[in-house]
Amino acid sequence: MKRTKISDVLQSTEYGKEVTVMGWVRTHRSGKNVDFIALNDGSTIKNVQIVVDPTAITVAGSAATPSQPSLKDVTTGACIRCTGTLVESPAAGQPSEIQAAEVEIYGLCDNTYPMQKKGQSFEVMRKNAHLRLRTNTFGAVMRIRHNMAMAIHTYFHEHGFYYFHTPLITASDCEGAGNMFQVTTKNLYDLKKDEDGRIIYDDDFFGEQTSLTVSGQLEGELGATALGAIYTFGPTFRAENSNTPRHLAEFWMVEPEVAFLDQEGLMDLEEDFIKYCVRWALDNCQDDLQFLNQMIDKTLIARLEGVLKDSFVRLPYTQGIEILQQAIKDGKKFEFPCNWGDDLASEHERYLVEEHFKKPVIMTDYPTAIKAFYMKQNPAAPATAPAASPAAVPAASSSVGYAATPSQPSIGYRGQQAPGPTMQGTDVLFPQIGEIIGGSVREENYDKLMAEINRRGMETDKLWWYLDTRRYGSCPHAGFGLGFERLILFVTGMQNIRDVIPFPRTPKSAEF
Amino acid sequence: MKRTKISDVLQSTEYGKEVTVMGWVRTHRSGKNVDFIALNDGSTIKNVQIVVDPTAITVAGSAATPSQPSLKDVTTGACIRCTGTLVESPAAGQPSEIQAAEVEIYGLCDNTYPMQKKGQSFEVMRKNAHLRLRTNTFGAVMRIRHNMAMAIHTYFHEHGFYYFHTPLITASDCEGAGNMFQVTTKNLYDLKKDEDGRIIYDDDFFGEQTSLTVSGQLEGELGATALGAIYTFGPTFRAENSNTPRHLAEFWMVEPEVAFLDQEGLMDLEEDFIKYCVRWALDNCQDDLQFLNQMIDKTLIARLEGVLKDSFVRLPYTQGIEILQQAIKDGKKFEFPCNWGDDLASEHERYLVEEHFKKPVIMTDYPTAIKAFYMKQNPAAPATAPAASPAAVPAASSSVGYAATPSQPSIGYRGQQAPGPTMQGTDVLFPQIGEIIGGSVREENYDKLMAEINRRGMETDKLWWYLDTRRYGSCPHAGFGLGFERLILFVTGMQNIRDVIPFPRTPKSAEF
Repeated sequence: MKRTKISDVLQSTEYGKEVTVMGWVRTHRSGKNVDFIALNDGSTIKNVQIVVDPTAITVAGSAATPSQPSLKDVTTGACIRCTGTLVESPAAGQPSEIQAAEVEIYGLCDNTYPMQKKGQSFEVMRKNAHLRLRTNTFGAVMRIRHNMAMAIHTYFHEHGFYYFHTPLITASDCEGAGNMFQVTTKNLYDLKKDEDGRIIYDDDFFGEQTSLTVSGQLEGELGATALGAIYTFGPTFRAENSNTPRHLAEFWMVEPEVAFLDQEGLMDLEEDFIKYCVRWALDNCQDDLQFLNQMIDKTLIARLEGVLKDSFVRLPYTQGIEILQQAIKDGKKFEFPCNWGDDLASEHERYLVEEHFKKPVIMTDYPTAIKAFYMKQNPAAPATAPAASPAAVPAASSSVGYAATPSQPSIGYRGQQAPGPTMQGTDVLFPQIGEIIGGSVREENYDKLMAEINRRGMETDKLWWYLDTRRYGSCPHAGFGLGFERLILFVTGMQNIRDVIPFPRTPKSAEF
Repeated sequence: MKRTKISDVLQSTEYGKEVTVMGWVRTHRSGKNVDFIALNDGSTIKNVQIVVDPTAITVAGSAATPSQPSLKDVTTGACIRCTGTLVESPAAGQPSEIQAAEVEIYGLCDNTYPMQKKGQSFEVMRKNAHLRLRTNTFGAVMRIRHNMAMAIHTYFHEHGFYYFHTPLITASDCEGAGNMFQVTTKNLYDLKKDEDGRIIYDDDFFGEQTSLTVSGQLEGELGATALGAIYTFGPTFRAENSNTPRHLAEFWMVEPEVAFLDQEGLMDLEEDFIKYCVRWALDNCQDDLQFLNQMIDKTLIARLEGVLKDSFVRLPYTQGIEILQQAIKDGKKFEFPCNWGDDLASEHERYLVEEHFKKPVIMTDYPTAIKAFYMKQNPAAPATAPAASPAAVPAASSSVGYAATPSQPSIGYRGQQAPGPTMQGTDVLFPQIGEIIGGSVREENYDKLMAEINRRGMETDKLWWYLDTRRYGSCPHAGFGLGFERLILFVTGMQNIRDVIPFPRTPKSAEF
């Protein structure tokens, strides 16, 4: 009575053979002479049909069920074992079915079960996230989620990257992102304070104030500048009070970081990597994608195939702004402004990708001021810019940060050129999603990096270890971050990020 | 000038070909006519030897270095590019070397660099965890750590398990483990309290008190009872004030959970899985293992091979106690007692594995009282016990919890038998490590589970979703937990758990 997975049963043609399947009842309907049970065990989105002649089978209970069960107890959601004969199916759409000889009920399921066969709204299913996993849609999403994780690990392994576990609890604040969750073992009823009334942390678990990380990148750079190429893949946290279909307080990030990689190489890596993931989904998740294409988003598979078709457009930010401003002149309306120096909104990104180019775009060479401190600065003068990164010297913009403030000639740069207003960023913009990858070459010159840190008024005492990478054997390097749930949104066609992670963490919600 | 990884250079026999390598200088020594630079780029533990004729090469600086560098600036820790000719090496122990034509210095490294070639104590390296990654030992450990993660993902993928991301921030306390880190966005200077002085959490991010998870198992069971077989692989947290070589406050756990798996199947899975990981290390990490076997632990490789040789012993707890008590009678001294009902100490586990059986042991059927509430109870009477789990009915013990208190006949069980004093646990005990895997069949009977929960005085209002798995289509299932760092300790031979994770989190230490 060895169990066979339903995915294997459905591929078998050994008709006449005895098989045992175990799973959850999706539907049970009674015909004139026989009953039909559609059984699913999670191994595939497809159910196996079990044909039951009520007069010819034995029904047994188990330790968890009443002693005298009957066939009519086998309702939607119930868990059963069925042993029977594999036969060719007369029904359309399925090669085989099982002629039942024995049914054992593992667990009953009464009609208070929230996942009834009629279907539920996503809202209701979110409230029952512990049971929505048993539905077709969430089964499909979770199997694809697994496959995307496997694609990521396999890609990096095959390319000589090492999986690198950066810490979750941190005493430093990457990128000055703010909105962090505090982590503490302090007794909140008896907070020790100094004479100025400041809370003292020497009795906290780590002896200082700690938070949950917003990114593993800075530690990832430590790995890359020792091991050559690493990637992180772990949870990150943002305590933003954003109740939107795009935000989670706890989400998974993938952050590769590579020594000796320049901007051109970084773009090649980004494009190759994400195409690999999408191809993996098309190659390995056809049944689940077909289901989602039919039920959730009829353009899903075409969109996935579209990403693979062409090379991504590589577009300097400054040219992107020109295209957007031309579009505005031609009558296109955007909600947010897009002058040089502005951070692009999702609507701008999607216009470029979906309407203008009709393919994914890698946007490069953003204004330094709208990006993180560690990004490699482009040289200022176009004539001396390397061929790989055509420098964009824009008109001055008064709308953003320090880029618009007078330059600070007192900061001494050892290099030949004053810092330009752009940096070697390389963000990948996707249809539907907008920014799916944020990447850049990192500034490896200690003095330039320090000048940028000082210009931003950042504190460096918590970052001594990061700065050491530029002090000791500094090397050119680059990397990117991929929000894993954004990838899953793209690959599944789902609309709400809360529906692509098993148990979403959002404001006022830490259930399950 | 395309870069070739040093791991590839060392495998190449294309002598006479121009190659470009980039990496960090391990040593630089000057001979009579030529200099020798040992260069490492993290792709392998092996260095490539670069032979430099100082009179015949060009040395260039880059943006991050002084404008007029010279060959003597190429010191230990410096980062360089070298282009030259691959030649057959006259030196022993290396097939090839590079005859340099051009050296470019990416980053200098002065003599304050903490990782000098003379070597440092582990204690010093822990204080410089950001740079210790550039040493041979930590390079080897991190490459093996990556490989073990890859082995785990590959094993489960090939066996039809789905990688399942359970939440890190939780409002429920798995296993009542205590010692959790609180996660909060509350302003600690202005804590809202109710009229009884209790802190109110409705203004905290999640609207209730939350912590960092100590295990993803309970949520993992939700996945397994829907998708059939899942595994978690993520960080878990314990706020234990334990300053030992075996404890971390933040560590990575692997927790597979499988529907329709019984105790026998669980033991098969545990043994097959961990042998797969060890075999992967032997197959894929030979260079690093050879190094560790030579420098850290001369019995390492023999111990790894030993694990693969035989079937693991499967030993009921009660028999284990008998063996230990016989050993005591024969003169063996233990620090801790080991009467029936006691939790075994590491010394007992290691005696059984290293001295008595001389192979790994899967210990089964522990007293219910010393294990978690969710473990499947064995029937009480030996005569009715299933063959796979010979029930052990011990003499009463007065040393532990409720197992020694009078039975509670008022609790009604629907099953045929009263609960036995043992449960279907299956822990794997390893040489050197002691317990490396903790597993069990889970109690799927709602009434039995509730009785155990009540007996322990646990609160159930936070666990309604967990209990729903036993209410709706309950199924037999089983799973185990593997502390990832324990596996890495075993596979690397390292002695301190702080040396097998990049940036350890321990009491008073959240640096990097």
